[in-house]
Amino acid sequence: MDESVRQHKFLLDESEMPTAWYNIVPDLPEPPPPALHPGTLEPAGPEDFAPLFPMDLILQEVSQERYVDIPGAVLDVYRQWRPSPLFRAHRLEQALDTPAHIYYKYEGVSPAGSHKPNTAVPQAYYNKLAGVKKLTTETGAGQWGTALAFACALFDLECEVWQVGASYDQKPYRRLMIEAFGGVVHRSPSELTAAGRSYLAQDPNHPGSLGIAISEAVEVAAPDPEIRYALGSVLNHVLMHQTIIGEEALLQLDKAGERSPDLIVGCTGGGSNFAGLAFPFLREKLAGNMSPTIRAVEPASCPSLTRGTYAYDFGDSAGMTPLMKMHTLGHDFVPDPIHAGGLRYHGMSPLISHIYELGLMEAISVPQSECFAAGLQFARTEGIVPAPEPTHAIAATVQEALRAKETGEEIVILTALCGHGHFDLASYDAYLNGRMVDEAFDEDRLAEGLSTIPAVPGR
Amino acid sequence: MDESVRQHKFLLDESEMPTAWYNIVPDLPEPPPPALHPGTLEPAGPEDFAPLFPMDLILQEVSQERYVDIPGAVLDVYRQWRPSPLFRAHRLEQALDTPAHIYYKYEGVSPAGSHKPNTAVPQAYYNKLAGVKKLTTETGAGQWGTALAFACALFDLECEVWQVGASYDQKPYRRLMIEAFGGVVHRSPSELTAAGRSYLAQDPNHPGSLGIAISEAVEVAAPDPEIRYALGSVLNHVLMHQTIIGEEALLQLDKAGERSPDLIVGCTGGGSNFAGLAFPFLREKLAGNMSPTIRAVEPASCPSLTRGTYAYDFGDSAGMTPLMKMHTLGHDFVPDPIHAGGLRYHGMSPLISHIYELGLMEAISVPQSECFAAGLQFARTEGIVPAPEPTHAIAATVQEALRAKETGEEIVILTALCGHGHFDLASYDAYLNGRMVDEAFDEDRLAEGLSTIPAVPGR
Repeated sequence: MDESVRQHKFLLDESEMPTAWYNIVPDLPEPPPPALHPGTLEPAGPEDFAPLFPMDLILQEVSQERYVDIPGAVLDVYRQWRPSPLFRAHRLEQALDTPAHIYYKYEGVSPAGSHKPNTAVPQAYYNKLAGVKKLTTETGAGQWGTALAFACALFDLECEVWQVGASYDQKPYRRLMIEAFGGVVHRSPSELTAAGRSYLAQDPNHPGSLGIAISEAVEVAAPDPEIRYALGSVLNHVLMHQTIIGEEALLQLDKAGERSPDLIVGCTGGGSNFAGLAFPFLREKLAGNMSPTIRAVEPASCPSLTRGTYAYDFGDSAGMTPLMKMHTLGHDFVPDPIHAGGLRYHGMSPLISHIYELGLMEAISVPQSECFAAGLQFARTEGIVPAPEPTHAIAATVQEALRAKETGEEIVILTALCGHGHFDLASYDAYLNGRMVDEAFDEDRLAEGLSTIPAVPGR
Repeated sequence: MDESVRQHKFLLDESEMPTAWYNIVPDLPEPPPPALHPGTLEPAGPEDFAPLFPMDLILQEVSQERYVDIPGAVLDVYRQWRPSPLFRAHRLEQALDTPAHIYYKYEGVSPAGSHKPNTAVPQAYYNKLAGVKKLTTETGAGQWGTALAFACALFDLECEVWQVGASYDQKPYRRLMIEAFGGVVHRSPSELTAAGRSYLAQDPNHPGSLGIAISEAVEVAAPDPEIRYALGSVLNHVLMHQTIIGEEALLQLDKAGERSPDLIVGCTGGGSNFAGLAFPFLREKLAGNMSPTIRAVEPASCPSLTRGTYAYDFGDSAGMTPLMKMHTLGHDFVPDPIHAGGLRYHGMSPLISHIYELGLMEAISVPQSECFAAGLQFARTEGIVPAPEPTHAIAATVQEALRAKETGEEIVILTALCGHGHFDLASYDAYLNGRMVDEAFDEDRLAEGLSTIPAVPGR
């Protein structure tokens, strides 16, 4: 019962909130490879994305500007929960008996309970400006679908969500949350699309994957000019919208008197949460202002960075999107139905993949039982039950804090707590009651997945 | 898409957090009637409460001091989520097209997702100081059980929770949340206690009630000096711990430039959330510094203030507690299994009952479908899905905002959003899909409940 006064959270006023997103592309030593048209194999132009996205977002996708102003209407929505708090994990530090200073940037304060509204809100806004009536999307853990349903409610758009079957079955409350915001949810694969029907034909209880759900949402959106598609991660503009997380964290660490963090660590599925925190710190690192290690953490069962191939591949399972050069397990790879549904994606953001290839960051993978153990320790010390996705980052943080205990180094760790686990408690139940096992990674399945990567001559 | 800059939240630094709880008792024009020993019918002394509570809390229960310092160890825990934010509901105002200014003090940012940790943390702290090893308690909606499990985890106490059967069945995630924090949960009535077995003998699927769950938790705690009982509402010390809500709100409304609110409105079950917000404002009203209307909102199916009798009655259903003078529907009254489980209590806090009798506040009741309609409108504008309990306060806020629209008055409303509804989505599902009906209030059941109030000569 330490009664000394110690500050737990580092807040910013609404007036201190950053008003621009950061685009890392022009700061990189080499430009990322372009997306390719799947038919011609030539670099894809804005018109190739036009059936899916409004032009404002396409221009952001290919922007060479370092900063993009956040529209006032988006800032106005952000202000409800942003700036989000930065916490010092004093009690976790005590429990680990570590000299490390552990900070977590908490995005669970948003309406959807995760970082996803940071991009859902601008995506809904730009689509509304473009006259769109309905947005379709996929959702894994349900965080993204919830965020988009919330954003659509604010901008008076319809919202139709294909939720990955495994998550749909595990997390009924996520569907209810999307419905509470006025969205419509389908279990994916569904009978509503040709892509969905083809997977159901293989297996009527198909657990689905993000790649399949994307195929379904894209299939519905592309032919109808009043319907557009919204992606919750992977693409450059989505990652850029998330950089407000890292921009705030830079200001907040400064308030905490920590100007030179040693480790920035975040979980990666499609990569948006990780990029959102890490890119502004990478900018500072590239500029020589600090020298943190930047580490991505992925699930052992879906290790696109650590076990995938860097190659051109489709973003969806049915092969409907432009080809993107990325770390991929193969667009037809269906990972185990692990509890971190938001990390079950066959590929990694092309931009993060490129940065990884440039050697500017590192990646590790962690098995899920280690993640849930860390998540429970976090809950019982810090009081927040984390979503299964960020437990990967917490597990990596604990690893590093225990290393610091051995070396005695007072290192500064910053991690992204990208969402709470209020809708994931069935997963904690499985862990607490011994129903969670770490399957050995299926090498045959990986080989099969990698075999589906298309050949792209000369790339 | 209003792009003008408008402030959404009014924050306080940790350094601005109040460091004392407010005890309204010495400021009242008449002292509240004492609790009575159920055997002698004489005023109960501290020793009568000693089998249930540690002496520090008993002394707070009967304190005549206006302010009680918050211990440093409790402040240190509070600082993780306190000061909690005060929000201006700009988008709800727009949707209602009202000139009213609507503010809500949001307690859902706490680890348990409600106001309950404000008292769970000091209760765990004082019990730990007194050498207690385990706390038992009841929980209705599950908010209180979650809060106590969290607080016990921090202070290394065991925690055993009897959850009202109807809530246990409706809200499996609440049990899982309590277990994630390390607590143990039983469906009440349970086979573990004599009280529980007697109710199960009447009905093996008994929906339970807060009164029954209290009987069970008390029965286990009283005979064992290493086990004590913790109550989540009703008692003076519990209400006092919650006054930090109103103290903060006073400072925050001042920052918002609103020094004279017209209406303070909160939902009431046992009364702690309502008192926490309202008592500091009532102090200012009694001192002549402002003149807000102070309004309690209760469910139409459990209307202790508006339909109950002001009389001495037991706090639990089995008649094991001291007698308290309060508005009561009869200690054996079992309300309909409505979705706002936290408001299903047969009595009202004696202190609030006394203040109501003094004419210092008013009360209304609202049927649950009106509450859920207001809750959904709130979710789709403000982005927060409220717990069913505070939807009662939101419904009353909407009523008043629409009245202001008719009169054109720019009134200032402050309401208590005491928790989020992440574990209550099955209730929203029932509402959205037409499975929620407002039963006519059962007058026969009320008459039967009132008939169980004991006769206390001369009181």
